[in-house]
Amino acid sequence: MELIESTTSFGGKNAVYRHRSHACNCDMTFGIYLPPQTERTSVPVLWYLSGLTCTHENAMSKAGLQQFAAKRGLALVFPDTSPRGEDVADDPAYDIGQGAGFYVNATEAPWVRHFNMYDYIVKELFAQVCNHFPVTEMHGITGHSMGGHGALTIAMRHPETYTSVSAFAPIANPTESDWGRKQFLTYLGANEDQWLRHDATELLKSKGWRRDILVDQGADDPFFNLLRPQALTDAATAIRVPLTYRAHTGYNHSYYFVASFAEDHVNWHADRLAP
Amino acid sequence: MELIESTTSFGGKNAVYRHRSHACNCDMTFGIYLPPQTERTSVPVLWYLSGLTCTHENAMSKAGLQQFAAKRGLALVFPDTSPRGEDVADDPAYDIGQGAGFYVNATEAPWVRHFNMYDYIVKELFAQVCNHFPVTEMHGITGHSMGGHGALTIAMRHPETYTSVSAFAPIANPTESDWGRKQFLTYLGANEDQWLRHDATELLKSKGWRRDILVDQGADDPFFNLLRPQALTDAATAIRVPLTYRAHTGYNHSYYFVASFAEDHVNWHADRLAP
Repeated sequence: MELIESTTSFGGKNAVYRHRSHACNCDMTFGIYLPPQTERTSVPVLWYLSGLTCTHENAMSKAGLQQFAAKRGLALVFPDTSPRGEDVADDPAYDIGQGAGFYVNATEAPWVRHFNMYDYIVKELFAQVCNHFPVTEMHGITGHSMGGHGALTIAMRHPETYTSVSAFAPIANPTESDWGRKQFLTYLGANEDQWLRHDATELLKSKGWRRDILVDQGADDPFFNLLRPQALTDAATAIRVPLTYRAHTGYNHSYYFVASFAEDHVNWHADRLAP
Repeated sequence: MELIESTTSFGGKNAVYRHRSHACNCDMTFGIYLPPQTERTSVPVLWYLSGLTCTHENAMSKAGLQQFAAKRGLALVFPDTSPRGEDVADDPAYDIGQGAGFYVNATEAPWVRHFNMYDYIVKELFAQVCNHFPVTEMHGITGHSMGGHGALTIAMRHPETYTSVSAFAPIANPTESDWGRKQFLTYLGANEDQWLRHDATELLKSKGWRRDILVDQGADDPFFNLLRPQALTDAATAIRVPLTYRAHTGYNHSYYFVASFAEDHVNWHADRLAP
């Protein structure tokens, strides 16, 4: 693991590392924020999964999470959104290929060789973080847009690992959206049964969630119809999962929206990971 | 004035405008944050001048000022750092030409045609902001690096206009630094007397400052020797100007440094503009 960059931020450290990924069969880059508390103790971890076109860097520099993570003593992990490199498959569209891993393990050529972001996040980077940094076994997960989809689906499939979950404007029902159907067909093939394991709404229906969920959504998000938050809230209501869904008038899909509610999400996770 | 972009942020509005600048003889772009208080009243203004290579956008998306401006009821203005365009002179170096206006009025060819950032900030954009937005006559000014230089020099030359001043890692003594001598020779010519009006340390010696000044500086800033904060603190000490200078161990020159102290600067200005 190679340290690329290290900067002080709110009394803690932002660090960027590059490492060889077996899951993705290429070098991967991730960011981590270690709050000042890690100088003397281990801390819980909040994973932040980013959206389409992002790298590890966008949320690190724009979401404003560090300030609150420093106050509450949470580490933050900022993974990249896909494998990258000259020999990694790509597509001219912004929402397929590099920058658009969708947190699945691809089964279709040519993606199958590198696009295993699900295993990368859940297994490989998880182990890397736990082995190399002063963190406890308490993990929460959040994300934005495609990353909100990743956070919800990963948490629901691994409730023993992720104690808390939240999302900013998640792709909440991708099997019914053009942000989802196109990618699942490309990465996972035509058998739609395989898609259901990567749909937060479908997972909530099939597996439930024993704790609570926080979802914030810009009411003026231009991608609202692609995100389908109402499918998730309907499912939560039907099976009585305590989902807090907040639609915020005037907010769009940008990091200005994410930053405006960063404090609430950090506190949500901190209250559940280190009460 | 054309509205390019508008996003909600911490209950207020980030807006980006393009307008024809007479001072710079080209179209200019700036950002403005209007806190939620502007729905019912006028508010004081904090000007934020950015550093080398930046546009209006960097601080708007990375400095994290809006959160605190919303709490304290300050508008924020984010000007660009130079004239821009295909017919605007430029240089291959990152620290001359577009993105590097240095907040002076150029007298030398070819820069004289467009590079009048001093008049643009102090006169033209000032009038534009006062005429078009719900702001009071109370103005403060801050900035980062080259923009810290701009903030200090502009405040000291117009103490009747700018009530409060602060800076993040300012170029504090450009007439004695390679960040300054090179640009002043290029934009202002070889007569070094003309340079002194754009050197915060020299202005403090010649004009003084009747109020107080806040300067934050990363102690591990790789550009420390170019910034020369000690020249400014020495001058302030000699003439007993109350300058608060804080060197922060571990912090570098990045927006992670700026964001870490954003709250203190917004509060510094709010305490003096709207006590």
